[in-house]
Amino acid sequence: MEFSNVTALVKGNVYFDGKVISHAILTAEGAKKTLGVILPGEYHFGTEAAEIMEIVEGSCSYVLDGSEESVAVAAGSSFQVPANSGFTITVDGEPCHYVCSFL
Amino acid sequence: MEFSNVTALVKGNVYFDGKVISHAILTAEGAKKTLGVILPGEYHFGTEAAEIMEIVEGSCSYVLDGSEESVAVAAGSSFQVPANSGFTITVDGEPCHYVCSFL
Repeated sequence: MEFSNVTALVKGNVYFDGKVISHAILTAEGAKKTLGVILPGEYHFGTEAAEIMEIVEGSCSYVLDGSEESVAVAAGSSFQVPANSGFTITVDGEPCHYVCSFL
Repeated sequence: MEFSNVTALVKGNVYFDGKVISHAILTAEGAKKTLGVILPGEYHFGTEAAEIMEIVEGSCSYVLDGSEESVAVAAGSSFQVPANSGFTITVDGEPCHYVCSFL
């Protein structure tokens, strides 16, 4: 999976002591996406814009803020997180590779 | 620092249990580069193609295979590694962000 005709930002984003690392791209239309890797563990992220998390390799589970339901997500699937909210994501075993698109 | 009009590969490259993570881009001319983050530690990488490592944030030191000289590299500087060789890179303190260009 790849994105063509984008601008790639060189400096990465490092979260949770490097357990989650992403690099940002901007599409020709100006949309921002981040391409990231999540190492095994459990992490909480807050959102400003709404976002779509697409799992491209590995798997994870997530719980949206305000929910008690844990949802399993396999590679090839995605989930949406509302704006001004957040989610807890858990990865077991292999690193989870994702694309995050900001809406 | 950014690269425009590139193709970005979504799946990242994970080395040393995630202590080094990069994402690859292809330029319009077909050149491959990786945009990466190195967490503190010491790592050895082998090369097939020759490569240029440009440090864009943070700092590191490196020793080329066959050399005993450790060279410090600050952000904004780069070093070249010959083909079919390798280097040991050491990062202290803050994560080191780099662009690796394959020649």
